[in-house]
Amino acid sequence: MKAMTAKIPEMPLHELTAAGIVEAVTAGRTSCEAVARACLERIAQREPEVQAWQYLDPERVIAQARALDRDGRRGPLIGVPFGLKDIIDTCDMPTEYGSPIYKGHRPAADAACAALSRKAGGVLMGKTVTTEFANRYPGKTRNPFDPARTPGGSSSGSGAAVGDCHVPLAIGTQTTGSTIRPASYCGAFGYRPTYGDLRCTGVKEAAGSLDTLGLIARSIEDIALYRDVLIGIEPEPLPAAPGVPRIGFCRTPVWPKLEPYTQRLLEDAAHRLARAGAKVVKVTLPAGFERLEDAQRWIAAFEFARNFSWEIENHWERISEQLRNGRIRDGLSCTLERYLEARNLAERCRAMLPDAFGECDVLLAAAATGEAIMGLSLTGSAAPCAIWTTVHAPSVTVPVFKGPNGLPVGAQLVARRNDDRRLFAAVQWVYRQLSANDPAH
Amino acid sequence: MKAMTAKIPEMPLHELTAAGIVEAVTAGRTSCEAVARACLERIAQREPEVQAWQYLDPERVIAQARALDRDGRRGPLIGVPFGLKDIIDTCDMPTEYGSPIYKGHRPAADAACAALSRKAGGVLMGKTVTTEFANRYPGKTRNPFDPARTPGGSSSGSGAAVGDCHVPLAIGTQTTGSTIRPASYCGAFGYRPTYGDLRCTGVKEAAGSLDTLGLIARSIEDIALYRDVLIGIEPEPLPAAPGVPRIGFCRTPVWPKLEPYTQRLLEDAAHRLARAGAKVVKVTLPAGFERLEDAQRWIAAFEFARNFSWEIENHWERISEQLRNGRIRDGLSCTLERYLEARNLAERCRAMLPDAFGECDVLLAAAATGEAIMGLSLTGSAAPCAIWTTVHAPSVTVPVFKGPNGLPVGAQLVARRNDDRRLFAAVQWVYRQLSANDPAH
Repeated sequence: MKAMTAKIPEMPLHELTAAGIVEAVTAGRTSCEAVARACLERIAQREPEVQAWQYLDPERVIAQARALDRDGRRGPLIGVPFGLKDIIDTCDMPTEYGSPIYKGHRPAADAACAALSRKAGGVLMGKTVTTEFANRYPGKTRNPFDPARTPGGSSSGSGAAVGDCHVPLAIGTQTTGSTIRPASYCGAFGYRPTYGDLRCTGVKEAAGSLDTLGLIARSIEDIALYRDVLIGIEPEPLPAAPGVPRIGFCRTPVWPKLEPYTQRLLEDAAHRLARAGAKVVKVTLPAGFERLEDAQRWIAAFEFARNFSWEIENHWERISEQLRNGRIRDGLSCTLERYLEARNLAERCRAMLPDAFGECDVLLAAAATGEAIMGLSLTGSAAPCAIWTTVHAPSVTVPVFKGPNGLPVGAQLVARRNDDRRLFAAVQWVYRQLSANDPAH
Repeated sequence: MKAMTAKIPEMPLHELTAAGIVEAVTAGRTSCEAVARACLERIAQREPEVQAWQYLDPERVIAQARALDRDGRRGPLIGVPFGLKDIIDTCDMPTEYGSPIYKGHRPAADAACAALSRKAGGVLMGKTVTTEFANRYPGKTRNPFDPARTPGGSSSGSGAAVGDCHVPLAIGTQTTGSTIRPASYCGAFGYRPTYGDLRCTGVKEAAGSLDTLGLIARSIEDIALYRDVLIGIEPEPLPAAPGVPRIGFCRTPVWPKLEPYTQRLLEDAAHRLARAGAKVVKVTLPAGFERLEDAQRWIAAFEFARNFSWEIENHWERISEQLRNGRIRDGLSCTLERYLEARNLAERCRAMLPDAFGECDVLLAAAATGEAIMGLSLTGSAAPCAIWTTVHAPSVTVPVFKGPNGLPVGAQLVARRNDDRRLFAAVQWVYRQLSANDPAH
């Protein structure tokens, strides 16, 4: 291990953010290997309960970290351990897509996001658990705050691994609510980018017209950093002092599905943000948006059922009954007319969205219906995310609430397409206000 | 081989369209094996000159055809030999993406389009030659009408194989003009679908916001049939008597780049179609469209350079100099601002397109600048396609012209997004008029 030239930061290494690790490694205060070992120790301690990892090879992790130390490499993610949802191809680790059909499958190449993360100096910790094909049939992962509850899905392991401090960064994906929900359930920041910004090459497609990567981290600054790395540009730090955002409080058509305590938490938050100086107005979505949740279902199912033609034709019996009788049956029964009608509605709503924001920078809405639900057989409702996913808008779930059982609940902030940086600045401000004012923090 | 119950059709089996094969096989007039053997014989005769195939295993082809005959299988493509561009994954044949990096690569699964073709009863003939990663560095294929000339690219083998009657159907892809151009150069119908209609799962991505599959065939009816198979719906035949289309003659900003004879052929065609009863008007594209060719270049380059991060980081020396100094250099030098500006322009033009059509059903434009160019080191200009690709519009190149050397030149018909069926009906009508009236036919 490299000699340390200054005192070790007071925070345990495995609790550092990515930015904190980069700073410490670059300043010579710690080494890539020390950080990797700290995260591995945390995993060794917690994994028997949490089960976030589909593939983890500690020796390979240490070897990667040592090589970075030896070469004196620099980079925007130098020494940062990261996890990849196991629907993301890696050339040196199995990639099983959460399905027995792909047991032991070894892709020829890294997905673009994997290669960009490594290029930036990141240390690939391993593959995080995904539901079957990023749909609903769950993997083994448990909620790190209560092992009797789901971590959410489909990016189950990515949410749990970050929320439980195994790694500071993980990549998931989202077709409905597969990043925002597990991040909310696991007390992390989760980011679904503007559709089309982050390349999905080498990621098993669920429904291409909706799929994006999703980033999970423990600070919004880390989300912004990782986004720049994955866009393939020089990272630009967020402003130290973000301006006061204009916020639209948006109940959305999903409001009646939320737990009453989630409704109250959101309403309280809106009041607190207004008291803290934000302009907060009510925003009602235009007619048509109430049909987006249903439209999303048909778009996703129609595309999914075609994308998995090979698996359906050749491995029907190895697909879970839940998937066969759910999304695949939906997709095979969906007519082209119904699919196109849904796609056209999505497109019309997408075009209406900027005006719907009015003068607001961001909308404040639910990230999940409430705390992680009990049990491991279901991954919870994606309904609060379906609208935003379908209109291709960027959003972040911000870990600012606690539910009646003391478990994390996120607030979702949503921005116009291509407004991801403005979204991040709003998240910075909102997080500071709500963390500072919340008696639970 | 199955006993034949009726006379063999007069046309040689390898010259039949897909619809003709399905009809003959279903009626018991021929067998899948007989068709496969006829196509293999044609290939054996022509391949030394044309070199359309990257992978071809005659025994495997015969085995597939025999299995279909033995099982008495039916299906919308029963017995139809088809080729797949070698950037499309196949579980039982190598898939090399036109790059030495992937020499001998064997994917775990079929691409969705491969599985859907087989499910429909098609016989996978083999993998057709692609340029390197569907970019510009050429493969070995020659133009079947003049081996000293390019077949076009990047779907070089798919264009040549269909144009030269090796198979009645082949799949290519298009990011700029990679299906329309080789189809035009090789005397076939080429179809670029409305963006997003045909799933690209298992197809090596070049630039996801532009990429589509492309279909190449020798009749528009075959294109329509194959489209339905790949959308995953019950095929619906085209109307026997298509109505007279309203046609917009659209020079586009690329007009000065066309060969003078191509300009004359298009102008003549517009006159002949008007004389045949079509309403033909001039259509000028709105301001902004003249910048789309440039925008397309930056969108494609920016995304390409990120998609191939793994190859760039790990196999730089095995990437052609042409690609390194072309699209990859462009992409790595392109700022996020320039990319987003291009993407936003594309989106604005996309929104303007329906109105730009006015009352027209389709626009008539160039498919290529002229005949296939001399030499095998360049694949010709994609400029006539860039606009339509970028606005996600469906188009078909119709093989109706001959250039000064007697080589094929296509006319491109373009429709509004989601108007693919109307496009096909217009192509039917236009093809009948121009084939019937053309002294060269």
